[in-house]
Amino acid sequence: MSSSPSPPPSKPYHEILGVSEESFDRLEEHLDRRVHDGLAYRHLSNHRSGVERGTVLVAGTVVRGFPKIPRTLTVSTGVPEHFDGPVAVEEKLNGYNVRLARIDGDVLAFTRSGLFCPFTTRIVRRELGAELEALFDEYPQTMVCGEMIGPENPYTAHEYPGVDSIAFCAFGWRDCVSGRPLSVPERRDRYESFGIPQTRHFGTDEPAIVADGLREIVEALDEEEREGVVMQSRDGSRQLKYTTSAANRGDLAYAFSMPFEYGQEFVFRRLVREAFQSVEWGESNSTASERAHRLGEAILCSMIESIEAVAAGETVGNRQTVRAEPETVDALLEHLRDQGLTLVIDEDRTTNGERVVTFCKRSQSTNDRIQNYLDGQIVDV
Amino acid sequence: MSSSPSPPPSKPYHEILGVSEESFDRLEEHLDRRVHDGLAYRHLSNHRSGVERGTVLVAGTVVRGFPKIPRTLTVSTGVPEHFDGPVAVEEKLNGYNVRLARIDGDVLAFTRSGLFCPFTTRIVRRELGAELEALFDEYPQTMVCGEMIGPENPYTAHEYPGVDSIAFCAFGWRDCVSGRPLSVPERRDRYESFGIPQTRHFGTDEPAIVADGLREIVEALDEEEREGVVMQSRDGSRQLKYTTSAANRGDLAYAFSMPFEYGQEFVFRRLVREAFQSVEWGESNSTASERAHRLGEAILCSMIESIEAVAAGETVGNRQTVRAEPETVDALLEHLRDQGLTLVIDEDRTTNGERVVTFCKRSQSTNDRIQNYLDGQIVDV
Repeated sequence: MSSSPSPPPSKPYHEILGVSEESFDRLEEHLDRRVHDGLAYRHLSNHRSGVERGTVLVAGTVVRGFPKIPRTLTVSTGVPEHFDGPVAVEEKLNGYNVRLARIDGDVLAFTRSGLFCPFTTRIVRRELGAELEALFDEYPQTMVCGEMIGPENPYTAHEYPGVDSIAFCAFGWRDCVSGRPLSVPERRDRYESFGIPQTRHFGTDEPAIVADGLREIVEALDEEEREGVVMQSRDGSRQLKYTTSAANRGDLAYAFSMPFEYGQEFVFRRLVREAFQSVEWGESNSTASERAHRLGEAILCSMIESIEAVAAGETVGNRQTVRAEPETVDALLEHLRDQGLTLVIDEDRTTNGERVVTFCKRSQSTNDRIQNYLDGQIVDV
Repeated sequence: MSSSPSPPPSKPYHEILGVSEESFDRLEEHLDRRVHDGLAYRHLSNHRSGVERGTVLVAGTVVRGFPKIPRTLTVSTGVPEHFDGPVAVEEKLNGYNVRLARIDGDVLAFTRSGLFCPFTTRIVRRELGAELEALFDEYPQTMVCGEMIGPENPYTAHEYPGVDSIAFCAFGWRDCVSGRPLSVPERRDRYESFGIPQTRHFGTDEPAIVADGLREIVEALDEEEREGVVMQSRDGSRQLKYTTSAANRGDLAYAFSMPFEYGQEFVFRRLVREAFQSVEWGESNSTASERAHRLGEAILCSMIESIEAVAAGETVGNRQTVRAEPETVDALLEHLRDQGLTLVIDEDRTTNGERVVTFCKRSQSTNDRIQNYLDGQIVDV
């Protein structure tokens, strides 16, 4: 990584971003300024003035934020409503969203909010260094968009067959500065040709046909506890997502394991999704009841577990395991602590030159409030 | 009811309320001014500057709001923490909270937020006219606090054995102006002597003994689908509530039948209560799972029902049945419409001189949003 200060922008940022000077001035107040290991950058951690959340300003250029993907609650009407031409259906993976770009000659990984991630950067360079260099040599202004998946994951751990630890899986190819996507077939061909793993493609068809066939795909994904699908117009400009019940349940269990950290809206939305899916699929009373039972367990059992853990003096939070070269793990832990997280290390060992660490990002509010309520603190409601 | 304008206050309202003139000036901005059938009053629909929500300023006097009752999530610690002397345990009923006061010679009923309710006023005069007159003759400055319960209820219908339609049940006796409560034994004696029905008393004991015995009481209430208990210091000054799982489930089912009307916090709190109760009761995995299943059904099945109703072109909302003299029902419907509610009348018949009306308070947001999502409107999350 270059440790020299970034050169001045080749042209003003507002021109690069395609907004007025005044818009950019307003935007600038909301940019977070960061320096990591000599890399100075600014990023937008919330959507503002028509610029995507996660947009990064670095070394005189821009790494555009990945756009938010809208969702439908009713497939049969939502898909035809949203698309007027062929729709590509690809798998939506459950991990964390990253964007890779080559800045001043170095491949860097940025998380959804535009934070440079030293851990992801090292992992993708180790796993796909040559492939990415070849890609960026040919298409230097590319933003490689994908998901980091697998069980040994510092943010969102989820099992995927064939992924023992952590792996990158591409799902988008965009212009780094404008954010414009490549069409689905071109993108898939290019990733194929560069040997970069990419998300599963279930097919491309007319909206009505996609809507008809989606339930079967989603049910199969659900059985494998997978997350869902992203649908796109062939040119990649319009996107729409739809998720499995397993994903909703997983999210609920996760949220309720830290009940006082997660937004109540986060929870509410997932409950609503379940109800719409059940209605659209015309579930019988007994099937809907089974769905309700699994939902209830996701909510209650994870919350009970956390309360019992606090009662037993344990730390509640997001518990993850990572495995990598010692220096990579060091960089990750430092990075997480730099963000103000309190890490409790549960296990730390070295196997075959790799360091394997299980740590818990302590959820301050959840630990404190559960303890208070166990101590008999009254609640004013 | 007196139709003459209210006389000027005997002393300024800030003195009656016991706040400074400046406090009262600030408070005054938040008072809602109402006129009903010649009765002019102001009320505080939200807690402000140390004055209880629901406080009414009428005819130169005050009807104090009923204080919010704090809750514990853990009985074993919460009860001893909250009380330092004997604790009276009484049943908490599931209906709507009303306060009765005699103003200018007339017994009037005010709801929780301080709204005069012409329906409740007529019902209590019809059912308990003589008893209340005797009570107010002897204790004119009393505020009779209680719950309107039963299945034929314009706000909160719930079955109670022995209540065919709607009934008043007292649970508090306070000074109308200061809000100061009578002690529990005095209150119970007085209601007994005036022949006014009152809430069940399970006993009065030291905090540790109450905490130990509460589970048994709550489990018995739960089996009968009853709401819970209110605990009070003997002098009535400190209160604490604790509710059954049945009450939580009932609330959740109700809230999710109108998912876009109810606060997400409302839902969240009830889920948290369930988890703490399960942990405190040391439930086995299978008992906790059963609790989770019932919880899931309360959430999902009521939401599915509402979505299906909207899909079938029906109106979703709070559906209630009332039975009373035609004039009383007219007064209720007018009162509800005056509050901006859209009523859909499902049934309207007369039996034995009584009018029986089933109506639905239409939930605008829920109807609209469910319809939009069924139509495929995307959601931006």
